Amino acid sequence: MRAGAGEEAIARVSRRLQDLGFGVHLSRGTERTLIGAIGDKSVLSGVDLEAMDGVERVVPIRQPFKLVSREFHHEASVVDVAGVPVGGPEIVVIAGPCSVETREQLLETAAAVRAAGARLLRGGAFKPRTSPYDFRGIGEEGLRLLAEARAATGLPVVTEVMRPDAVELVDRYADCFQIGARNMQNFDLLREVGQTRKAVLLKRGSGATIQEWLMAAEHVLAGGNDRVILCERGIRAIDSQFTRYTLDLNAVPVAKELSHLPVLVDPSHGTGRAALVPALARAAVAAGADGLIVEVHPNPAEALSDGAQTLNFAAFASMMAELRRVAVAVDRVEPARAAARA
Amino acid sequence: MRAGAGEEAIARVSRRLQDLGFGVHLSRGTERTLIGAIGDKSVLSGVDLEAMDGVERVVPIRQPFKLVSREFHHEASVVDVAGVPVGGPEIVVIAGPCSVETREQLLETAAAVRAAGARLLRGGAFKPRTSPYDFRGIGEEGLRLLAEARAATGLPVVTEVMRPDAVELVDRYADCFQIGARNMQNFDLLREVGQTRKAVLLKRGSGATIQEWLMAAEHVLAGGNDRVILCERGIRAIDSQFTRYTLDLNAVPVAKELSHLPVLVDPSHGTGRAALVPALARAAVAAGADGLIVEVHPNPAEALSDGAQTLNFAAFASMMAELRRVAVAVDRVEPARAAARA
Amino acid sequence: MRAGAGEEAIARVSRRLQDLGFGVHLSRGTERTLIGAIGDKSVLSGVDLEAMDGVERVVPIRQPFKLVSREFHHEASVVDVAGVPVGGPEIVVIAGPCSVETREQLLETAAAVRAAGARLLRGGAFKPRTSPYDFRGIGEEGLRLLAEARAATGLPVVTEVMRPDAVELVDRYADCFQIGARNMQNFDLLREVGQTRKAVLLKRGSGATIQEWLMAAEHVLAGGNDRVILCERGIRAIDSQFTRYTLDLNAVPVAKELSHLPVLVDPSHGTGRAALVPALARAAVAAGADGLIVEVHPNPAEALSDGAQTLNFAAFASMMAELRRVAVAVDRVEPARAAARA
Amino acid sequence: MRAGAGEEAIARVSRRLQDLGFGVHLSRGTERTLIGAIGDKSVLSGVDLEAMDGVERVVPIRQPFKLVSREFHHEASVVDVAGVPVGGPEIVVIAGPCSVETREQLLETAAAVRAAGARLLRGGAFKPRTSPYDFRGIGEEGLRLLAEARAATGLPVVTEVMRPDAVELVDRYADCFQIGARNMQNFDLLREVGQTRKAVLLKRGSGATIQEWLMAAEHVLAGGNDRVILCERGIRAIDSQFTRYTLDLNAVPVAKELSHLPVLVDPSHGTGRAALVPALARAAVAAGADGLIVEVHPNPAEALSDGAQTLNFAAFASMMAELRRVAVAVDRVEPARAAARA
Repeated sequence: MRAGAGEEAIARVSRRLQDLGFGVHLSRGTERTLIGAIGDKSVLSGVDLEAMDGVERVVPIRQPFKLVSREFHHEASVVDVAGVPVGGPEIVVIAGPCSVETREQLLETAAAVRAAGARLLRGGAFKPRTSPYDFRGIGEEGLRLLAEARAATGLPVVTEVMRPDAVELVDRYADCFQIGARNMQNFDLLREVGQTRKAVLLKRGSGATIQEWLMAAEHVLAGGNDRVILCERGIRAIDSQFTRYTLDLNAVPVAKELSHLPVLVDPSHGTGRAALVPALARAAVAAGADGLIVEVHPNPAEALSDGAQTLNFAAFASMMAELRRVAVAVDRVEPARAAARA
Repeated sequence: MRAGAGEEAIARVSRRLQDLGFGVHLSRGTERTLIGAIGDKSVLSGVDLEAMDGVERVVPIRQPFKLVSREFHHEASVVDVAGVPVGGPEIVVIAGPCSVETREQLLETAAAVRAAGARLLRGGAFKPRTSPYDFRGIGEEGLRLLAEARAATGLPVVTEVMRPDAVELVDRYADCFQIGARNMQNFDLLREVGQTRKAVLLKRGSGATIQEWLMAAEHVLAGGNDRVILCERGIRAIDSQFTRYTLDLNAVPVAKELSHLPVLVDPSHGTGRAALVPALARAAVAAGADGLIVEVHPNPAEALSDGAQTLNFAAFASMMAELRRVAVAVDRVEPARAAARA
Repeated sequence: MRAGAGEEAIARVSRRLQDLGFGVHLSRGTERTLIGAIGDKSVLSGVDLEAMDGVERVVPIRQPFKLVSREFHHEASVVDVAGVPVGGPEIVVIAGPCSVETREQLLETAAAVRAAGARLLRGGAFKPRTSPYDFRGIGEEGLRLLAEARAATGLPVVTEVMRPDAVELVDRYADCFQIGARNMQNFDLLREVGQTRKAVLLKRGSGATIQEWLMAAEHVLAGGNDRVILCERGIRAIDSQFTRYTLDLNAVPVAKELSHLPVLVDPSHGTGRAALVPALARAAVAAGADGLIVEVHPNPAEALSDGAQTLNFAAFASMMAELRRVAVAVDRVEPARAAARA
Repeated sequence: MRAGAGEEAIARVSRRLQDLGFGVHLSRGTERTLIGAIGDKSVLSGVDLEAMDGVERVVPIRQPFKLVSREFHHEASVVDVAGVPVGGPEIVVIAGPCSVETREQLLETAAAVRAAGARLLRGGAFKPRTSPYDFRGIGEEGLRLLAEARAATGLPVVTEVMRPDAVELVDRYADCFQIGARNMQNFDLLREVGQTRKAVLLKRGSGATIQEWLMAAEHVLAGGNDRVILCERGIRAIDSQFTRYTLDLNAVPVAKELSHLPVLVDPSHGTGRAALVPALARAAVAAGADGLIVEVHPNPAEALSDGAQTLNFAAFASMMAELRRVAVAVDRVEPARAAARA
């Protein structure tokens, strides 16, 4: 719609589109309103929408994703996670253990990652595991400990939800849902978190194309929740001899070009080896990622899951110091220092 | 255990293993009983199990999958789907529309595929769709129509279940659950179907390794349901210009070598193009697959989903005629002819 | 050109195209002649070629490959290798050792594979090896032994050529050049064999798309040699835990649809394990391959290269017996029996 | 050998190893000499080499690559290209057109990339092309123009050699051979450049594992030339919708960990799109690459090859300015400024 188009004009166009069988989504900016029409473009062939009052231009969207598309929403979206802006100038680092194991482990880790500059705390209470014989997380007790760690450190909490009927429970404790790579196309789960008002960290499946990843995000936005944060975490490619997955950093500028959503990178899963995490973390920020999610544990050798790819406190602090310099070098605001926020 | 080991000896060994912290699964053959112990092998280092009464040999299992492994269960498993044996000598073909659309469409298709030799009817009532704007299936109404088609044709029904809390509903109508490629690592769903007594057709994820696929099956067996049918349906590989996925037929003999479970192939998704389906269907049977799952529709051009890879009735009948000859050439019992069963 | 168009008309159209800047290739069939024009299609926008004498129709070719395309050459090409027709009704099996090692090894193998129904003998005199410390073949002595084995058995010889300046040498001994997967885009080599009149077996590179493979063949045809045999031999995909490569059998019907050239399959490299070779060999024929190339050795455990994927004589004979039945089941002429030719 | 072991002791150990059938390579450091023995380890089982005079320790090398391995050569190698050190503290940028087209194009580009901080000039005289109908380079005339551009700017020249018998010709003009991705396993070519004393830039094949890439380098070192520079340039992976290849930046720290050779990155081929080159160039340096090779042209839209991924002068200068900041942020010496060298 034109800058300054009135509510009445907007409502009229919306109604006209609905009558033609389109789904309609309004996107209100400071100056102008965009009306997204989702449906069969060919229906519009004989309809002169541009002749309607207040309409500036009709722009066909070429990709199958619409609500996540930059074509529909030019400015980058900043997703607020309990006060922490993701997708703005600051590089946001989410850190914490793969799994919440004990109160002591979690509180100690939360304090350490906060001191080193993490802005959000991660930790799994429900763990998807390739083997049915592996540790699956401590469940709701883990959520309670995450809430306690948040109270102690002020760090908002990101945690995985694995099934639609657990969304309500996780919603009670978490500040941001994590959808794991294996659930990227668990469409019922996407729809369920799409009904909430919480941020959703959506990991790319290891076999998913960039388009499928954006379409998965589209499921959440189509459900009414536009607070989605994309996360590249490594794909299966031609070589898995020296790393667990192949981190696809091409996907970072591509996703930012195609979509307005923030893009994070997970160098822990993306490499599978702690020794490689700092190098790929720096590379991710240099490639334009809006932040990182990194696994940290007081003693990775004893972690109940993902030990090989987990940093200890010293390695994490050292990685953060390096990241600050890279962030500044690419004109981003460096990851917060606890000192600066105290 | 030795051939003829008594119940008491079996119970004693089982108890000893449980005391040592192992999970225990009994597998009773006609002659001897195998006791599967799931846990940390190193615990056994100082324990002389072979000295116990009735124990013949202790065999360490090398792969991370246990219940699905051939090492643990030498003979091929035959999974019964409402009277149709999958994994036996007969090549079993599952056919039907991608989505259940209307009563007429389904009944007509069921009759046609039965006449051409299909033994099971497929049809999606709940559809996972890459785009949130695509047709998602007609839900429970679709299940009811499937049951009606079964009544009309005698073909047992295979249909997809997408969320744990829908397992009970689908269980009321279906003879075999289908777990789609995108849900292969939806562990809560696997656990839920693992609680039932129904057969489970488990599709391989497009980015999943063979080991991950077998581990997904292990989740179902570990839940107590050993009626799993594996299904290769194409992986993402280096080329998607001419086909939708790359069908991995190496996976067929590999899966049959590693596991005792039946292995089917889905040439519809594996190629994405109807013109290629018959060639890959023949190849799958020649490679040792126990059967196929194929999409068939009265008018593929008007199908609400997957039209490009769907066969019409004539193409399906012609494919079945070719398959019969290949089946015989590899010493399998050819897919049933309706005539033979009438 | 129309059926019966005269030489003069053909020459006139050819000259006109050359004047317009096109490269011109004539393809003379029994009834009509096709004139392939290679160049910028847009040049033709104002030119009415169809108005010229003898011209039937102008058909734009959509793929970047032209001479290898079915659009340009509808009938399947049959490539003659010293009297053995590849691409006709008969399934042609090329067999022999990975490397020519000794006179005895080669003659013994040649006799055995001939007895089992192979029509062509393979054997490497010059070996591309991933490691510089591995056996690289015995060179020209190997070529001499291949010629001797041909004299002894009547089997024409296929052997690899690795460098442009060795084409002349290999040409003196071999009946068919093999271009290995690692040299698929060694364009100088392709050009050099394109200058000869010998058949060229062109393996697909393990990271090459189908289009790149066909374009590599185009290099040979553009050089003037249209006797190219395509060979799928496995690609690098997401899983290499249980097989060396992933055999891409989708590529068989796709290549045959896009191109008129014969398509063989190499199940030895495509799986990397002898135990899997027969299953994939059967599958390849069922998928429509025109033949196979298989590694056979008197004692695979002692082979100087590729032992793990090499069949012994008994396994090869048994595979051939199975293949015969599959060949007949897909309406192909079964691989020759020595008896039938004696 | 021990620090200070005499020449006689070294010769004695070398002779002993040769007598046992090993290939022997000496690597002389400032303090101590390493003797690399290439051959079958099991031969050493009954031999007590450590008892010999001057021997400090026998270290088995686990990977199949030896001369390129860090285990054999702990310090990073710095490869000198006509005075420009690659692999030292300075980030070295190689830039220039994909193909040498005209004298004017090349001289203009050379001056522009030098002014922006490139240290080496690239340009193809012989071009490997997927299609036989594409521009293949201007041959020796291109080499002459490269030499002229070197004389004019002082930039040493990197150019591709495609066939063994052209090595001598290219050697006359170039300061560094480039081995293209398609020729990574053209072993005769590797052996030929292994006979020279010139640096060799070895690109990773798009379907090659990291181990295969290092083994290809091993071929050059085994030939006697240890001046190899590795170059990651993108692999074929699961998605090619938005980029030409998938740049594998995991490979950078992995290759530097496994090998002592310098590692460069080619973001032009690795993405295939000019708009993405700067982001991935920054990421490569942040991941630890020792430099970059980038395609630059006065007018990419008119380039005879690779225009879509080629930067114009302004974009290159801007990328270099960004790179300088990232280089400093990861404690590298920033790419040279012409001013600083003037």
